[in-house]
Amino acid sequence: MTLILALDFGGTKLAAAVTQLGSREWLRYERRLSPINGNATTDLEIMRSLIHSLLQDNTPDAIGVSFGGPVDATTGRVRLSHHVPGWENLPLKHLLEEEFAVPASVDNDANVAALGEHRFGAGQGYDSLFYITISTGVGGGWILNGKPWRGTAGMAGEIGHIVVNPAGPVCLCGKRGCVERLASGPYMAEDAKEYLLKQANHVQGKQLRSLVNDNLDLITGKIISDAAAQGDELAIKILQGGAWALGVGIGNVANLINPQRFILGGSVTKAGEHWWNTVQKTARETALPEIDFEIVAAALGDDAPLWGAVALAESG
Amino acid sequence: MTLILALDFGGTKLAAAVTQLGSREWLRYERRLSPINGNATTDLEIMRSLIHSLLQDNTPDAIGVSFGGPVDATTGRVRLSHHVPGWENLPLKHLLEEEFAVPASVDNDANVAALGEHRFGAGQGYDSLFYITISTGVGGGWILNGKPWRGTAGMAGEIGHIVVNPAGPVCLCGKRGCVERLASGPYMAEDAKEYLLKQANHVQGKQLRSLVNDNLDLITGKIISDAAAQGDELAIKILQGGAWALGVGIGNVANLINPQRFILGGSVTKAGEHWWNTVQKTARETALPEIDFEIVAAALGDDAPLWGAVALAESG
Repeated sequence: MTLILALDFGGTKLAAAVTQLGSREWLRYERRLSPINGNATTDLEIMRSLIHSLLQDNTPDAIGVSFGGPVDATTGRVRLSHHVPGWENLPLKHLLEEEFAVPASVDNDANVAALGEHRFGAGQGYDSLFYITISTGVGGGWILNGKPWRGTAGMAGEIGHIVVNPAGPVCLCGKRGCVERLASGPYMAEDAKEYLLKQANHVQGKQLRSLVNDNLDLITGKIISDAAAQGDELAIKILQGGAWALGVGIGNVANLINPQRFILGGSVTKAGEHWWNTVQKTARETALPEIDFEIVAAALGDDAPLWGAVALAESG
Repeated sequence: MTLILALDFGGTKLAAAVTQLGSREWLRYERRLSPINGNATTDLEIMRSLIHSLLQDNTPDAIGVSFGGPVDATTGRVRLSHHVPGWENLPLKHLLEEEFAVPASVDNDANVAALGEHRFGAGQGYDSLFYITISTGVGGGWILNGKPWRGTAGMAGEIGHIVVNPAGPVCLCGKRGCVERLASGPYMAEDAKEYLLKQANHVQGKQLRSLVNDNLDLITGKIISDAAAQGDELAIKILQGGAWALGVGIGNVANLINPQRFILGGSVTKAGEHWWNTVQKTARETALPEIDFEIVAAALGDDAPLWGAVALAESG
């Protein structure tokens, strides 16, 4: 029996699972929240305890790792985490190979999820696809010619930071109107809050205010989706603006790379039919008429990074 | 001696040349303007006469073809020409293989030029690059993992039709503010003419008017570059707007695909240092700081399609 150990360092959560080569079910599975005010050392400690509880006396034959931040996939060295301090330049692959004496493969979560969807999910049978996660951030991972395409320095896939409206609001990256600034959950929440604070007469955003009991700090991307579903016009406008930005991004990518399929995952993709329709329509209008593509929902859900890590370990 | 026959159906010109496998010099070379009001049949007749004059009694061992319009590179069938009628669905590869009884390979000019620059020009030693031509139109060709990337349906590389300013002017493709609408020669000329026609007092565009003796229909991309070099403020503004659009496009592509090198060819790239500086600066500002790339001028000039056709024939 060939045992695969899959690890997911997700920024806010840590997960680990074991499966057999070729299987589609977990033998064992463990998940823990990453501690608030934690760091790389505490994350690694927790992961180590999850692993030992999973493996008991067994030894894995290969380890695959999804990491929530930029990674040099060639060396398996983490560049940094945007959420947890202490990960800068940590040689994660090397640490795991030393500790378990088996080959380990490490890549960032978007690339790993793309690989997972390609092998086990909505990308099966598709030789060229772009996986996009729309959640706290917006990122992407490529499969081209049936294999991950990571770019010269492993930085490919950053659809979150392509500019779709140069007159738009400023993103943390310094640019105006990039996809993440318009389409990610936290930025949509920020825009809603800012609008509501400015507005003296409380005409718009009634359902939105009601959902957070007028505590605007509680607004999230999820709350905006909920308010939009209740017909809140401000929430609808912001959500559609995000869908528009993502649609322009997807149409531009279709023109540039002409992949067969776009696969969308992440919490914002649960925002409902209107959001999906706007993404589809805008992407179709932005791409040249001769360029065909499909946009579909990710199939693996929250387990995409772990199943991707299995695929990564298998492809070594 | 292995003879390679290279053909370039360029829309406004037709060129053919022969070389030996492995050589970097032409044995013979012929070039003719495509007749005004011509069609696919007259273009093919002229090309046939060029070929017979080149080959004399020799037989080529392989044929490579650059075609100025969308091609299905797998079947070697032309989809259409935007300049010359009668090319719709013409099986060019098949026609040539029937006539010369040797293998022929056909691809669109941007893909072929990318291959030419990769094999013989500014892309030698670069495994991932994006070649962009900025001329009558704006198009691109990919080399990824050392090989052409054409997309699912051979439509990859259409950087001319990615949207960089959704509030910009309308392009023939139907969208607002795509790169070609802002950066191509004819559209820059159109914008200059329109501005000058609207302007009653003739304050701006003095040098531009003077270069065409007040006949605004004579304005071209080249004239705008010349006027800009003479300090004409309107010409400078339009040219810089085009360079900005291209720079945003390049920065977006860097974020998405992270290639090592961008190679720029086509007549507009002769517009001078200011144009190049704006392209470089805007691309650098648009790409994430972690993403490195170089933007360089094409090395093969007008012969890029023919040398690319040689590379295409060699790679079969």
